[in-house]
Amino acid sequence: MKTIVVIYSGGMDSFTLLNDAQEKNYRSLALSFDYGQRHTKELDYAKSFCATQSIDHKVIDISNIKQLLKGSALTDKLPIPHGHYEDKRMQIMVVPNRNMIFLSLAVSYALSSSASEVWFGAHQGDRIIYPDCRPDFIEKMDQLSSRTWSIGIQAPFLSLNKTQILSKGIELGLDYSQTWTCYEGEDRACGKCGACVERLEAFAANRIVDPLEYR
Amino acid sequence: MKTIVVIYSGGMDSFTLLNDAQEKNYRSLALSFDYGQRHTKELDYAKSFCATQSIDHKVIDISNIKQLLKGSALTDKLPIPHGHYEDKRMQIMVVPNRNMIFLSLAVSYALSSSASEVWFGAHQGDRIIYPDCRPDFIEKMDQLSSRTWSIGIQAPFLSLNKTQILSKGIELGLDYSQTWTCYEGEDRACGKCGACVERLEAFAANRIVDPLEYR
Repeated sequence: MKTIVVIYSGGMDSFTLLNDAQEKNYRSLALSFDYGQRHTKELDYAKSFCATQSIDHKVIDISNIKQLLKGSALTDKLPIPHGHYEDKRMQIMVVPNRNMIFLSLAVSYALSSSASEVWFGAHQGDRIIYPDCRPDFIEKMDQLSSRTWSIGIQAPFLSLNKTQILSKGIELGLDYSQTWTCYEGEDRACGKCGACVERLEAFAANRIVDPLEYR
Repeated sequence: MKTIVVIYSGGMDSFTLLNDAQEKNYRSLALSFDYGQRHTKELDYAKSFCATQSIDHKVIDISNIKQLLKGSALTDKLPIPHGHYEDKRMQIMVVPNRNMIFLSLAVSYALSSSASEVWFGAHQGDRIIYPDCRPDFIEKMDQLSSRTWSIGIQAPFLSLNKTQILSKGIELGLDYSQTWTCYEGEDRACGKCGACVERLEAFAANRIVDPLEYR
């Protein structure tokens, strides 16, 4: 059986990716990071889902890396901008080089657990503001990891947008009440941050109602 | 003034590299990692040297990543093999993908601190057992980081062996009693592990006596 490491945030994209791997009967090792994000609500959703599905799951606390970072509203106490995810104002949500850090750690884990690939959920909408979600970046990371360690790096949703990812999840019969997207960590999603706006658009485009509660 | 991030373990190679950068009047941001290595004696040497030289220094505790790794005597309680550093038995000292993890974090730090380059001390002797010290790996990492973030990755000692690095340090008038190399964390260096053997060979080849005490 093929074993893969899936970087799993607890959000919609990586949730769909993890389920896609399960559907293909791969053995998934789900991997989440606590990197000092403003809240860990997504991680609670990730833990809960893996526990109910008996998926092997590790949450690694690397929050000390905050000492190296600055200027991101994802980790600092800066106001979260409202508006569209692809808006230039969302630049403030970038944690510099986050994906290279996550992928490096996932490759180490793959090497230590005889997994042959690392999967992560970068998609078309990410690339506007995240340079380390772009096809060229992912292709080069894959080449580097494959040549050095024979571990492939795959981003199967790279050519899909959020609406298409959700369509795929609906086909798989997934329950998106088991995911968290909002940048705020309140009881109910805010509906106004870039992540909520993008999520709500994807549900509207698929003509279904988001099962999450909004303020 | 050019600002660079120098990955600094507290050992001979990165000590020489850091001093080389100081000699060139770069502003160095020294960066060390506690990744769950068997002992942190090298880090104590690193802290002490940076404190006396007023070099900006961060030690980041990422020891939780041990949960992802297995099978290395550098982090696990396995016996440390005696013999030559370049010996096949030294494979057990490999922490899988360690340098990609370190470099990724260093690039994040460079981005957050307006540094233009990351320097690290990989040398010719490393490449026999560490795939992520090979020229092809480093060249590809440099391309990736340069294209994605305009941060260069340099390994200035890549074509030097340990003896040549020490020669360079001697020319710079460096005091190697301020470095620690031994894989064991005892009061005095063991003189028998791969790291000690390689260090002692370099001193012998330079016809000088290592100022460290050995058992």
